[in-house]
Amino acid sequence: MVPDVDKVQVALGERSYPIYIGSGLLGRSEIFRQHIPSSQVMVVSNDTVAPLYLQQLRASLEGFQVESVILPDGEKYKTLEVCNLIFNQLLEKQFNRQCTIVALGGGVVGDMAGFAAATYQRGVHFIQVPTTLLAQVDSSVGGKTGVNHVLGKNMIGAFYQPRCVVVDIATLATLAQRQLSAGIAEIIKYGLINDADFFAWLEAHIEALLARDHSALAYAIEQSCRDKAQVVAADEKEAGQRALLNLGHTFGHAIETGMGYGNWLHGEAVAAGMCMAADLSRRLGWLSGDARARIIALVQKAGLPVKPPADINRRQFLSLMGVDKKVMDGRLRLVLLKAIGISLVTDNFDQTELNNTLSGYTGNLD
Amino acid sequence: MVPDVDKVQVALGERSYPIYIGSGLLGRSEIFRQHIPSSQVMVVSNDTVAPLYLQQLRASLEGFQVESVILPDGEKYKTLEVCNLIFNQLLEKQFNRQCTIVALGGGVVGDMAGFAAATYQRGVHFIQVPTTLLAQVDSSVGGKTGVNHVLGKNMIGAFYQPRCVVVDIATLATLAQRQLSAGIAEIIKYGLINDADFFAWLEAHIEALLARDHSALAYAIEQSCRDKAQVVAADEKEAGQRALLNLGHTFGHAIETGMGYGNWLHGEAVAAGMCMAADLSRRLGWLSGDARARIIALVQKAGLPVKPPADINRRQFLSLMGVDKKVMDGRLRLVLLKAIGISLVTDNFDQTELNNTLSGYTGNLD
Repeated sequence: MVPDVDKVQVALGERSYPIYIGSGLLGRSEIFRQHIPSSQVMVVSNDTVAPLYLQQLRASLEGFQVESVILPDGEKYKTLEVCNLIFNQLLEKQFNRQCTIVALGGGVVGDMAGFAAATYQRGVHFIQVPTTLLAQVDSSVGGKTGVNHVLGKNMIGAFYQPRCVVVDIATLATLAQRQLSAGIAEIIKYGLINDADFFAWLEAHIEALLARDHSALAYAIEQSCRDKAQVVAADEKEAGQRALLNLGHTFGHAIETGMGYGNWLHGEAVAAGMCMAADLSRRLGWLSGDARARIIALVQKAGLPVKPPADINRRQFLSLMGVDKKVMDGRLRLVLLKAIGISLVTDNFDQTELNNTLSGYTGNLD
Repeated sequence: MVPDVDKVQVALGERSYPIYIGSGLLGRSEIFRQHIPSSQVMVVSNDTVAPLYLQQLRASLEGFQVESVILPDGEKYKTLEVCNLIFNQLLEKQFNRQCTIVALGGGVVGDMAGFAAATYQRGVHFIQVPTTLLAQVDSSVGGKTGVNHVLGKNMIGAFYQPRCVVVDIATLATLAQRQLSAGIAEIIKYGLINDADFFAWLEAHIEALLARDHSALAYAIEQSCRDKAQVVAADEKEAGQRALLNLGHTFGHAIETGMGYGNWLHGEAVAAGMCMAADLSRRLGWLSGDARARIIALVQKAGLPVKPPADINRRQFLSLMGVDKKVMDGRLRLVLLKAIGISLVTDNFDQTELNNTLSGYTGNLD
């Protein structure tokens, strides 16, 4: 163990793993060494992150056979075809079943490297080094890996847990402000789902987070990882409870799919989706008008969109939500809110109000 | 449960599943119904098997939303690209996470449909209906799924267990004799690994099996499934013991890769590979000359090759074995024999004798 580094433990029985959180962890060689069981290490990164941090990571991995594959940056490259570049490199370098794949980058790199780790020779070791705020608080916790399909987001994938996650807060120094805000969207989500105190803390510290105050970021990341780890531990394979983490995501995926992946950031789409879920919850009489206003205000302060793009109409929205995986036997299930910090997954709500929410945003009934 | 059908239970905790074995099981609707939890069923088959048996299976699935995807027949189509045809169909038909994928066909169909089931929306229900002897005794037991890569066989995949396996012996009536023999290769393998009595039974009943005697086939399939289920139950993820099932496979994979997939059947390559493993075991002084002769005699009687093709030389063989996933940190591990029914996985053997085995078959030292 590494005694002087903050750690959140994700409790999943024999698949349990630690998330290390701190500044400068990329240079902490001993963290990596204790989680890599053999000599072969494949670092998967992208052409934005690799020039910034690959050298530093390589230095921490001195003595291993370190190879790397640098993918093009962007959600539109999260495909089976691009994933095949990782398989090519693994096979060309004759990597065996004891090898370790390290994801250095944001959520797209993590999802693809994780899927490659889950499926290369039916599963090899995997370490996440997330370098965006979104990946640090979301995609590095929970073991979801996968790629997009032209007909749907994240439609091909696997549940696969890493050996550890290394969150180096120093890597956020180079993150674009828009990406920082996108990460804050998922942080707000944890407060909304089941942590009203954290939501209130966020209302008080949103400026500090946007200014990249180091201790505020560290607290927000750690609290988010704890909240998510708790949900995931209770429901690793998303049979029930874990679906709460999809708050804002069904609306959000529709926005992302409707706009073509990559025009809106995932966190931006989720931000608008959470506001839509709050709006629907208010229309159903489940959420107070005051709570809805607080949610929209915080999302807006975080520099995030509070409504969907104007050029998706109601009918398109419904169609785009229809192929989403939250559909069970034809009925649309959504994550909705009873209060800030109290959420539920349900298909038991008045469909008319969904139409009203969509029409309210898109300004038409088609 | 289905009381009047023979059943082998594969014991894997919460992933345990039954293998039903009998004649006419394709028509036994109640078997399928009790293992399919929702309305959506996708049958994956190929253009050889579908015309023969898809109609009968569809009749047993009356009342479900049954869709199908018919793949081209052959090992060379066991690729990520062809697997994508299954994903396309699942998404076009808006199949959700509660759907069931049924594999109707041989090992290639089972491996690809299983991989699609393992990775579609991070895992959906899966049922195997193997229609070749090889698939019935081998690939339907143990949860290995996956596809080939141009640089190596089965290099991309997942461990994923079916809900049940339905072995309908009646489907063997239409199987080509060469395919029947290929299945017998794997049956012989179970005897060699850990079941000397079964090996002796096979020596006595090889003609009956080749003549498709119904009760001989039923016994051989059931015994093979039991033997394999026992090994798999002890070591689901192939950490140790399970590697014994690779007897003949490292040599065999080299033959398949060297010849290009599809020129030799998998079972044929394994048959020659088992003879090569026996030859090496003999040269190491581990196996008696008599045992080696019995092995070669039974393989030959089964209508299978007892040596590799003449046009792969020793150096090519070594190179082809080098990228195989049984390599651990640079040392070649092989499954070798101490006697008929006693096998071991080891990298602790005299490399010179491997060279002698290869030179002995290929007639050269290059």
